[in-house]
Amino acid sequence: MDQDTVAKAFVGHYYQTFDSNRAALGRLYQDASMLTFEGAKIQGAPAIVAKLTSLPLQQCAHAISTIDCQPSGPTGGILVFVSGSLQLGGEQHSLKFSQMFHLIPMPQGSFYVLNDIFRLNYA
Amino acid sequence: MDQDTVAKAFVGHYYQTFDSNRAALGRLYQDASMLTFEGAKIQGAPAIVAKLTSLPLQQCAHAISTIDCQPSGPTGGILVFVSGSLQLGGEQHSLKFSQMFHLIPMPQGSFYVLNDIFRLNYA
Repeated sequence: MDQDTVAKAFVGHYYQTFDSNRAALGRLYQDASMLTFEGAKIQGAPAIVAKLTSLPLQQCAHAISTIDCQPSGPTGGILVFVSGSLQLGGEQHSLKFSQMFHLIPMPQGSFYVLNDIFRLNYA
Repeated sequence: MDQDTVAKAFVGHYYQTFDSNRAALGRLYQDASMLTFEGAKIQGAPAIVAKLTSLPLQQCAHAISTIDCQPSGPTGGILVFVSGSLQLGGEQHSLKFSQMFHLIPMPQGSFYVLNDIFRLNYA
């Protein structure tokens, strides 16, 4: 698979999992992984999952607007930059966000998330 | 310097240079560098500078809202995620944007931009 295909497949999988079974996102991170969520830095898969599952979002649905990707260097990593909106259950308006991921290849052919930075786009 | 300090110094330098002498941004890129600007992929310092200097922005001023950074791996690289707004000369309103940079250390102690992804935040 080329990097655009990997990026698109990852983004689809990530937000579908986020919206349906957030605890399962832990499989995508490892001990070295970092999440910066609205400025708060969290390291390691267990702490990242604890953060994501504790967000006050009972029901949410992500809609993706753009996906950009680039190779992060010679070792097969991929930088993925996403923009989109987040519709919260029971609310009319949606929140725009931007998020970046750094995907690192694993020997068995899949990827894990080493870096994850999330920001809401305040109007 | 720790990575937060490097990231903050880089961001200040980058946007000040963008707003005052855009052609000088070329020094921050190398042949392997990539820019994705609103979905258009451009590789190499000369092509990146040609793109940046051809943007229809006679006068502009960036204002930075947030700077997040993380180490991109074990080799000293830094991922920098920026949000802010862009005020165009002669216009009242400003454009919100999000941008990420991947900074790679050089032997002499400075950094170059390997990856650069820019997106306007459409309302």
